[in-house]
Amino acid sequence: MTDKHLQAQTDTTASSMAFLEKAAALLGPRGLTQDGDVMAGWLSDWRGRYHGAALALASPADAQELSALVKLCVEYRVPIVPQGGNSGMSGGATPDASGRSLLVSLRRMNQIGAIDLENRRVTCGAGVVLQNLHEAAEAQGLRFPLTLGGKGSATVGGLISTNAGGTQVLRHGNMVAQVLGLEAVLPDGQIFSALTPLKKDNRGFDLKQLFIGSEGTLGMVTAATLKLIPALAERRVVWAAVESIQAARRLLLHVQGAMGEALEGFEVIPHPSLEAVFDYAPDTRNPLDSAAPWYTLIELVADQAQAESLGERVEAMLGEAFEQGLLSDAAIAANETQAEAFWGIRETVPMAERAKGPAKQHDIAVPVEKMPDFIVAASDTMTKAFPGCHAVAFGHLGDGNVHFHVIAPEGSDRAAWEAGDGKAISEMVHDLVTQWGGSISAEHGIGQLKVDDLARLADPARLHLLRSVKQALDPLGLLNPGKLIP
Amino acid sequence: MTDKHLQAQTDTTASSMAFLEKAAALLGPRGLTQDGDVMAGWLSDWRGRYHGAALALASPADAQELSALVKLCVEYRVPIVPQGGNSGMSGGATPDASGRSLLVSLRRMNQIGAIDLENRRVTCGAGVVLQNLHEAAEAQGLRFPLTLGGKGSATVGGLISTNAGGTQVLRHGNMVAQVLGLEAVLPDGQIFSALTPLKKDNRGFDLKQLFIGSEGTLGMVTAATLKLIPALAERRVVWAAVESIQAARRLLLHVQGAMGEALEGFEVIPHPSLEAVFDYAPDTRNPLDSAAPWYTLIELVADQAQAESLGERVEAMLGEAFEQGLLSDAAIAANETQAEAFWGIRETVPMAERAKGPAKQHDIAVPVEKMPDFIVAASDTMTKAFPGCHAVAFGHLGDGNVHFHVIAPEGSDRAAWEAGDGKAISEMVHDLVTQWGGSISAEHGIGQLKVDDLARLADPARLHLLRSVKQALDPLGLLNPGKLIP
Repeated sequence: MTDKHLQAQTDTTASSMAFLEKAAALLGPRGLTQDGDVMAGWLSDWRGRYHGAALALASPADAQELSALVKLCVEYRVPIVPQGGNSGMSGGATPDASGRSLLVSLRRMNQIGAIDLENRRVTCGAGVVLQNLHEAAEAQGLRFPLTLGGKGSATVGGLISTNAGGTQVLRHGNMVAQVLGLEAVLPDGQIFSALTPLKKDNRGFDLKQLFIGSEGTLGMVTAATLKLIPALAERRVVWAAVESIQAARRLLLHVQGAMGEALEGFEVIPHPSLEAVFDYAPDTRNPLDSAAPWYTLIELVADQAQAESLGERVEAMLGEAFEQGLLSDAAIAANETQAEAFWGIRETVPMAERAKGPAKQHDIAVPVEKMPDFIVAASDTMTKAFPGCHAVAFGHLGDGNVHFHVIAPEGSDRAAWEAGDGKAISEMVHDLVTQWGGSISAEHGIGQLKVDDLARLADPARLHLLRSVKQALDPLGLLNPGKLIP
Repeated sequence: MTDKHLQAQTDTTASSMAFLEKAAALLGPRGLTQDGDVMAGWLSDWRGRYHGAALALASPADAQELSALVKLCVEYRVPIVPQGGNSGMSGGATPDASGRSLLVSLRRMNQIGAIDLENRRVTCGAGVVLQNLHEAAEAQGLRFPLTLGGKGSATVGGLISTNAGGTQVLRHGNMVAQVLGLEAVLPDGQIFSALTPLKKDNRGFDLKQLFIGSEGTLGMVTAATLKLIPALAERRVVWAAVESIQAARRLLLHVQGAMGEALEGFEVIPHPSLEAVFDYAPDTRNPLDSAAPWYTLIELVADQAQAESLGERVEAMLGEAFEQGLLSDAAIAANETQAEAFWGIRETVPMAERAKGPAKQHDIAVPVEKMPDFIVAASDTMTKAFPGCHAVAFGHLGDGNVHFHVIAPEGSDRAAWEAGDGKAISEMVHDLVTQWGGSISAEHGIGQLKVDDLARLADPARLHLLRSVKQALDPLGLLNPGKLIP
């Protein structure tokens, strides 16, 4: 190491120490820690795929504290990695290995405001856990209409920053559709406050959109005003067998036509994934007596006003579907326990697939009407190009969003396969999706997982816009570096 | 004039001539004109409040031609003023008086694509006139759920660029809610193309939002894919009398509770505005036998599935409202002619108010629940501060968006009053709206009309974001200069 390098490192250390001293004074002992044991759990993503290091873990109490902290970070050029529940799928909340970044948790901002019954909305801090928001809404006869597997850890701030999806997007939209207003701390420490929802506001383009789905690269969401809807009074969960993925799409169109806005979820599961679930969770049963190539899981709901007729309407719709040859068999969950069991199968698929051995998972979207053909074509392409591999697709058919897994040949070494064929497979899947006019990230975001493929595949105008806006708002590049923006 | 100035002017002229020559070669005779008679109609806004001059009027045939034209404008540093139907309310499509700008009409891009019945959407050019879009959708049993007074001239591109509202926003949202995808030419001539709608796409924040409501300052929309909904099968239009604006809000809550998504419009009109309509259009009749302080105009709709029960449900709802003292009298339009007559009254209000003499009009929004109190407080403030003035408020109560007019004392000289008290009144109204947490532009945009008040009243973080994004995408400041961005 040359003297110059040594000098630079010493300066960095001295600068870091000065920064940490000021940050500690600003945030107090609850707000800043360098304790390795406390930090450890937050320096890797929950799936254990990304591992990082950080100067310290900061937990500001509110937007004002965060604003002051960001100004300090700007002064000392300290990169910031914001984090909510750390249950993202793309490594967007894990710092790099340099240890130069400050990990900033928004979890202390976990206040849920009074529920506004008349306007059906609630303002809450970025750190509110989704499950707690669900419970607060339910206690007032209302519902927050977005849910997903990680609801016990995912926070409002993280859900907004990644524009999270889930199983109710078909009817209610992604997180972006739930956000009426928000507050964010900008990369220079300014607070952008637009919490009070206005139904109409044409003072230029919608600035809050800059913070929805931008993965903390343009600002950190500190609070949001969210939409609530009337509580569910009734639901019917249907498990139906179909002959092909194209048949599943025809069934979807039939259900949409017959049930309109009562249709809240439409998921598809191929038979091999059901078998994987049987292997993984031996207590699981097929809701139907016999096997079929594909299954669909359909959620139909009604609020108080429509509750009474729901069961009848669902039975009539299924009867017609059967007569028209749109399904080969179907079961309606007889009670809530059975309904939960049907959903349990769907929710177990990702774990069950993962347990079968090395696999590459892809969260992709193509235009809804092209999805069935895409699945057939992509499965075919992958198994031909990589003999011995299996492709399975499952998920949100109604949204044009499937999770497309390519499973390694039996007996493959995980590390070797993932670094070799696995990597090539993911690139090929993303190439295909792009050729079909789709997106390499439907609902999990870009994070660090897909940032190279975004650079490779996005058209120049899209990359130009992403980079220009990033450069404009965060010229020092301090906010969540290495994520999303190629 | 010094020699230096003279030299600069000659250079400019030589440069302009060279630019015009190249532009003419690029666009052909249909695509470029300097004919003063042809241009005249497009150099003033339709209300005659703004007058400008331009180098020429360009009408590119498609996005590719526009892209090449923009690159030429960049080369010669020629400012661009994009224009659709020229029926905006804030002077956003009128060039300044310098004559240095190129006026760019998008009206030739007026193709309506095939209507996609299965996915209920249509892709059309920026120049499609709203009325033509309505008719194309209706011919296929569908509906484009946004309408406004200027539907015979307003274009899809202009509606998107100004995020237009109208009378159906309560149920269907502004233009932003109708846009599934779009294509735009950026300030450097690149084409951003995102016409194919994906229900889910989490490759960062939603880039198309940059072009919705940004008034052509960040790019020019050339085409869009728009949402369609099932055609209306039935409607009921109700004219109801209430004692106060607060009572109107209570009635709104009642109708929302009883009718849910059948409620499509809820407008308020004060008695003085009805009298203004009588003076302006003497054939008009009050739908009710006696006068009341306020009237509400309520539009209730049903598609095929709900059509049969609509009349019955509306009558039951009104019966309850009457019993609960929420209204003093009400009339349901007996047929379409009467329904159109009820709406005709509402649509005549702006013209009737204008005919009464000089007035300052304000398109403002406050949180919906605060609107009644705001109207009372603001009317009181204005008439006390400016004795002899009258304040009237009418419009979209359900959206928290009223048009708030302050009318000059009788006998005032228009020009003197508008430049003096009128200007002071508008500033005071905008101050008040800002204090109430509202917006100085609910649906008409900022344009050149409100750009000074935006600079004066917007909080620093909002201005910082607007300016930073503008500077990033249009560093030369060539796109629609002097509009929206202070």
